[in-house]
Amino acid sequence: MANDKKVEAITSMEEDFAQWYTDVVLKADLTGYTSVKGFMVLKPAGYAIWELIQKQLDERFKATGVENVYLPLMIPESLLEKEKDHVEGFAPEVAWVTYGGSNKLQERMCVRPTSETLFCDFYQKDITSYRDLPKVYNQWCSVVRWEKETRPFLRSREFLWQEGHTAHATAEEAQARTEQMLNVYADFCEEVLAIPMIKGQKTEKEKFAGAIATYTIEALMHDGKALQSGTSHNFGDGFAHAFGVQYTDKDNTLKFVHQTSWGVTTRLIGAVIMVHGDNNGLVLPPKVAPTQVMIIPIQQKKEGVLAAADQLEEKLSAVARVKVDRTDKSPGFKFAEQEMRGIPLRIEVGPRDLENGEAVVVRRDNGEKQTVKLDQLEELIPALLDTIQKDMLEKARAHRDAHTYPAENYEEFKDIIENRPGFIKAMWCGERACEDAIKEETGATARCMPFEQEHIADTCVYCGKPAKKMVYFGRAY
Amino acid sequence: MANDKKVEAITSMEEDFAQWYTDVVLKADLTGYTSVKGFMVLKPAGYAIWELIQKQLDERFKATGVENVYLPLMIPESLLEKEKDHVEGFAPEVAWVTYGGSNKLQERMCVRPTSETLFCDFYQKDITSYRDLPKVYNQWCSVVRWEKETRPFLRSREFLWQEGHTAHATAEEAQARTEQMLNVYADFCEEVLAIPMIKGQKTEKEKFAGAIATYTIEALMHDGKALQSGTSHNFGDGFAHAFGVQYTDKDNTLKFVHQTSWGVTTRLIGAVIMVHGDNNGLVLPPKVAPTQVMIIPIQQKKEGVLAAADQLEEKLSAVARVKVDRTDKSPGFKFAEQEMRGIPLRIEVGPRDLENGEAVVVRRDNGEKQTVKLDQLEELIPALLDTIQKDMLEKARAHRDAHTYPAENYEEFKDIIENRPGFIKAMWCGERACEDAIKEETGATARCMPFEQEHIADTCVYCGKPAKKMVYFGRAY
Repeated sequence: MANDKKVEAITSMEEDFAQWYTDVVLKADLTGYTSVKGFMVLKPAGYAIWELIQKQLDERFKATGVENVYLPLMIPESLLEKEKDHVEGFAPEVAWVTYGGSNKLQERMCVRPTSETLFCDFYQKDITSYRDLPKVYNQWCSVVRWEKETRPFLRSREFLWQEGHTAHATAEEAQARTEQMLNVYADFCEEVLAIPMIKGQKTEKEKFAGAIATYTIEALMHDGKALQSGTSHNFGDGFAHAFGVQYTDKDNTLKFVHQTSWGVTTRLIGAVIMVHGDNNGLVLPPKVAPTQVMIIPIQQKKEGVLAAADQLEEKLSAVARVKVDRTDKSPGFKFAEQEMRGIPLRIEVGPRDLENGEAVVVRRDNGEKQTVKLDQLEELIPALLDTIQKDMLEKARAHRDAHTYPAENYEEFKDIIENRPGFIKAMWCGERACEDAIKEETGATARCMPFEQEHIADTCVYCGKPAKKMVYFGRAY
Repeated sequence: MANDKKVEAITSMEEDFAQWYTDVVLKADLTGYTSVKGFMVLKPAGYAIWELIQKQLDERFKATGVENVYLPLMIPESLLEKEKDHVEGFAPEVAWVTYGGSNKLQERMCVRPTSETLFCDFYQKDITSYRDLPKVYNQWCSVVRWEKETRPFLRSREFLWQEGHTAHATAEEAQARTEQMLNVYADFCEEVLAIPMIKGQKTEKEKFAGAIATYTIEALMHDGKALQSGTSHNFGDGFAHAFGVQYTDKDNTLKFVHQTSWGVTTRLIGAVIMVHGDNNGLVLPPKVAPTQVMIIPIQQKKEGVLAAADQLEEKLSAVARVKVDRTDKSPGFKFAEQEMRGIPLRIEVGPRDLENGEAVVVRRDNGEKQTVKLDQLEELIPALLDTIQKDMLEKARAHRDAHTYPAENYEEFKDIIENRPGFIKAMWCGERACEDAIKEETGATARCMPFEQEHIADTCVYCGKPAKKMVYFGRAY
């Protein structure tokens, strides 16, 4: 059957990881093309993954008291400019609207690159008393950043995301919410996307424009590069001062609110591809697989085969997302297609299987085959999907741990970065100069100062002065 | 208790319907303000209604084979210009992006006012063979139209919607899909929003820019004005010719596809407000009520009252969307707030009720009160919500029917339009001149040529020539 596969066109990951990625994205039918340069198209197979991410993340948000809202797509220039650091961070990459119909706008507006300024403007009008707090709002939308180089899911001029924006009475509450949402993200990525995350704080250099602290979850891709997968920011009361967001407290004094924001994007789909994919294509964790089981009839023209496949689909639909491939393609072609699309399980049913009251079940993640009695499938399939979900997380964790290296000194650091792509754990003095030099000389950036600190050495890996923090470094997407 | 109500600030609908509408939208906390003129903010209570609309409509779409996708937010000017009628219809009201960061764009792009041109561009690249057809794609997104006068939900510079765009092998299939989606909309509005719809075809004058036929669902608001609530367009192969969207058929010849598009917007929320609302505020049909039952404790500081309310909430959460109002406001204030927000049922529980093992249940739609044994609530509440849903539809239908008037001649027509706001059923010769004159002289537009034709007279209501069609006329939002 192997010769019948139609996967020749896909580049192997070992040969050229970037080309492998592009091949998978296109051949698994996740994205398509339009004439709009640098903008992404999500085809049904890609958008359905995003829908599953949205649904499961939104449930987790709501369980913590988040409420969804929708704010305008456009931001007047004067609003964007109110917070100094923020405008410096974003102004170079926004798209400007200058005309409405044939009339030049009195004030130009940017298409939102992120909505801190809008939420502040809104909160300034909506919050008056301590009774109005906390506000724990979120919106699902798209944002625009005028990137020069783009890659599907990883970097594009428009991407889909959610952005949470909260306002609190106290600094402690804002800090607690910032950490809470980072944990929601990390748990979601582990439990749903089967991707283990390093949780930590960004350095001053890498933090968000306008934040007092940025927290991040960082994942390791199959090629040893890091991917920032979600961030959560504590703004303190900086934006509140800039926008005058105040409330009357119980003691009748006027106070500034403390704010946070946090977001994840369609980039998570890029992470799923690059953590779990293989040379046969995409491998989807069952919890975000739009189709979890593909039933493939063998010799489908023989009497009873298609009917049996249909019956099986109906029965199994109660326990999983199941489809039958009824096209007139060859079984081998169908196998290759199901593998390319990353569908976690396939069930092969042919005349001989049916005679024996059996079917062949094949796992996408490790290729394991088993012959199963038809009347046991209803029990087996959900259990097998659970097993796959767990095994994929463990495999990803093992890969990450095997590609995480401590570096005690700069020689080791440089050797690792050149020869063993992965995370580097190293000590840092806390000085921006060292961070800059490391980036300049090796291309590695400080991914985060992890919450789980370890002692690798006493001194900074670059300058040799006393170390303050253990940092994860890596080349990143 | 009535004196305790806090609804004084709301204008009565009889006094000033437009002001009543604005009051409800704000006091039911559906929308809020930002500094972005003409753009809408959906606050949690408003967005949650949209989420319920989305969920239930999306399920109905998917049951007919629709797949969701996402296409770019921006359209290069050259793409928008490819279909002549279409660009003429939309160019005057689009927002133009001219700069990306500090660089002037080589070609300006508009923020999508609708995505026919993008889907054509995409389909042109994605469709090659009859095997690729049909394409039945939809996207949930926002669109921008640079309106001069705006009103929340009814007309704003940005609104949320879904836009379906399909491509078919034959003209017959495209026509069938156009009608199918109109029926999905009409059924959804009746069954979920409790709003009866008139289904019909738009006149040439009122049809969509670029379509060969536009179908519409039209509803009657409480003030007797019509609201176009959803449209479905058949494009024939016009766009396909303009964009070169072709496929190789089974007979190996190259053919043009036939296309449709269809959409509904957040305007549906405006319809819900104006069909069902009353002088106490919003009245939500249970199926789109984010909270269906509000439990209001009476004398909540007395021992056992709040605990009983909490228990009730937990028990009833299995059968409905239930909340307890635990704030320290007075019961009368809570009643008024629950009514303003349109929550279909409230349950009052006080010490005396609890002693008797009872609670008082009050319907929002008609004010009916009943005392119910606590152990019967689990059965009663879902049944009562069903009843309310049905009663609200019947009430809306009765109102519409009572405000739909046949006009045999122009004198009658003018008399009705001045004195009895509602739909006018009248005969029409099919000439644009008569339609224009009626609009000019009375402000009434042809809402649609209904599928269910009636014979009102032999001659056109305006010119007296032989009539071709019965038309619904009305002043509209």
